Amino acid sequence: GMIKMSNLNRLEFRVRYSMTDHFGVVYYARYLDWLEAGRTEILRDNDVSYADFEKMGMFAPVVKLDVEYKKFARYDELVIVETKIEKIGNSSVEFSYRIYRKSDQTVIAIAKTVNVFITKEGEKVNVPDTVRKILDN
Amino acid sequence: GMIKMSNLNRLEFRVRYSMTDHFGVVYYARYLDWLEAGRTEILRDNDVSYADFEKMGMFAPVVKLDVEYKKFARYDELVIVETKIEKIGNSSVEFSYRIYRKSDQTVIAIAKTVNVFITKEGEKVNVPDTVRKILDN
Amino acid sequence: GMIKMSNLNRLEFRVRYSMTDHFGVVYYARYLDWLEAGRTEILRDNDVSYADFEKMGMFAPVVKLDVEYKKFARYDELVIVETKIEKIGNSSVEFSYRIYRKSDQTVIAIAKTVNVFITKEGEKVNVPDTVRKILDN
Amino acid sequence: GMIKMSNLNRLEFRVRYSMTDHFGVVYYARYLDWLEAGRTEILRDNDVSYADFEKMGMFAPVVKLDVEYKKFARYDELVIVETKIEKIGNSSVEFSYRIYRKSDQTVIAIAKTVNVFITKEGEKVNVPDTVRKILDN
Repeated sequence: GMIKMSNLNRLEFRVRYSMTDHFGVVYYARYLDWLEAGRTEILRDNDVSYADFEKMGMFAPVVKLDVEYKKFARYDELVIVETKIEKIGNSSVEFSYRIYRKSDQTVIAIAKTVNVFITKEGEKVNVPDTVRKILDN
Repeated sequence: GMIKMSNLNRLEFRVRYSMTDHFGVVYYARYLDWLEAGRTEILRDNDVSYADFEKMGMFAPVVKLDVEYKKFARYDELVIVETKIEKIGNSSVEFSYRIYRKSDQTVIAIAKTVNVFITKEGEKVNVPDTVRKILDN
Repeated sequence: GMIKMSNLNRLEFRVRYSMTDHFGVVYYARYLDWLEAGRTEILRDNDVSYADFEKMGMFAPVVKLDVEYKKFARYDELVIVETKIEKIGNSSVEFSYRIYRKSDQTVIAIAKTVNVFITKEGEKVNVPDTVRKILDN
Repeated sequence: GMIKMSNLNRLEFRVRYSMTDHFGVVYYARYLDWLEAGRTEILRDNDVSYADFEKMGMFAPVVKLDVEYKKFARYDELVIVETKIEKIGNSSVEFSYRIYRKSDQTVIAIAKTVNVFITKEGEKVNVPDTVRKILDN
């Protein structure tokens, strides 16, 4: 059948104790776990499995990361992580992210990552067509 | 006695299992723990205690983060994190970081954070003089 | 209306890169994040909010933890965490957990925690009735 | 030259923001990172490299974990983790741990893990002699 392509993924996370710090808010490194989930799920939305890429010897580590932390996320709040693909180069994919509080839509953080497709040995390879199509759509 | 001011901190970390991921390298979020340690220790080098700021009702969360991941850090390797203060504004401090492999000095990542001094309620306050002096030095 | 009491919570988690380690499986400490979520959600299932306890000055840290790791959980797998309350003392609640792979129901780990209700200052307080009722049910 | 065998390792850790939680203390899962470091370093003290075992196709995952959390560890405190080997079976090694605050020697937690030596495929193998000698000593 046809796959409905989509270049916007939304994930919901509950803020857990494990994500918070001594200041009572989500520790700045925990956001990166959410970004990872966003990248994987926007692919899955489009019937692309990152786990399958790995079985084929392809990996897509983050080579560049930018985050602006605008507000705090607090224990037990629900946050939404929105992920989009912004740009695709020969080997690179740029993702953008918007993280907001579910209750009042306040934007908590925005972020951008650049991921590069490589072999296990670290040589660049072309972005797979199945990923490229998500943006073309 | 006199305090010897220094605007360069070097910390050494051993890469642990807890920091690595399924690809066999340090997960991109773990670097942020190292950056935090760098920020705290460059202050302590200059006789400034971040914990004391907190007791006085001041906090300095990260509001902006940029990381470039250039190489991988692998299990059981030793890495060095170098931290410097680059710029100080009214309420903000910009830190820069260079992370390299100890054995061969290969740069693994570079990073920058902007931290803003605030009260518990989130109002901006001036960067304490004790911090400002580190850069003036 | 009436609240349907339930002493069994089931949560589903997707194994992320952030949870895996260099051996290619979920790092043994990450399971504890899942256990925390299970404790919170079995309370929420019964209309009890741990966040509200905190606003009232009550906390319930883990004082005892036992885990048996039986199998590995791998990247991108779905796991189910089942949480039950086993026993309630004056100040303590014992939770049990069973973690299994969703696809084939293989048990990956079993665990037990004892949590103790205390004030911010660390003095023991009675387990709230709203929690006690979950087991009585 | 001769290697001085030693069945007691002591590691010092500074409590970082990344380790703390919303209650203002070290999150219960972070202790496990310290235990891992203890296991690795007691081996290294005796000239045994866990990384080398891996290159030879041997792994030693935790199959059993018990922790008693007795006190809280707080931000910026120094803690000491003491690791010992307690027992060695055909394929298994039991480690015990004592974690205490450096300033006043207060015991914060005690723990025990059982690790089992296996191949990449999960088959049990004998505990290497180099490890066995640590206990015999």
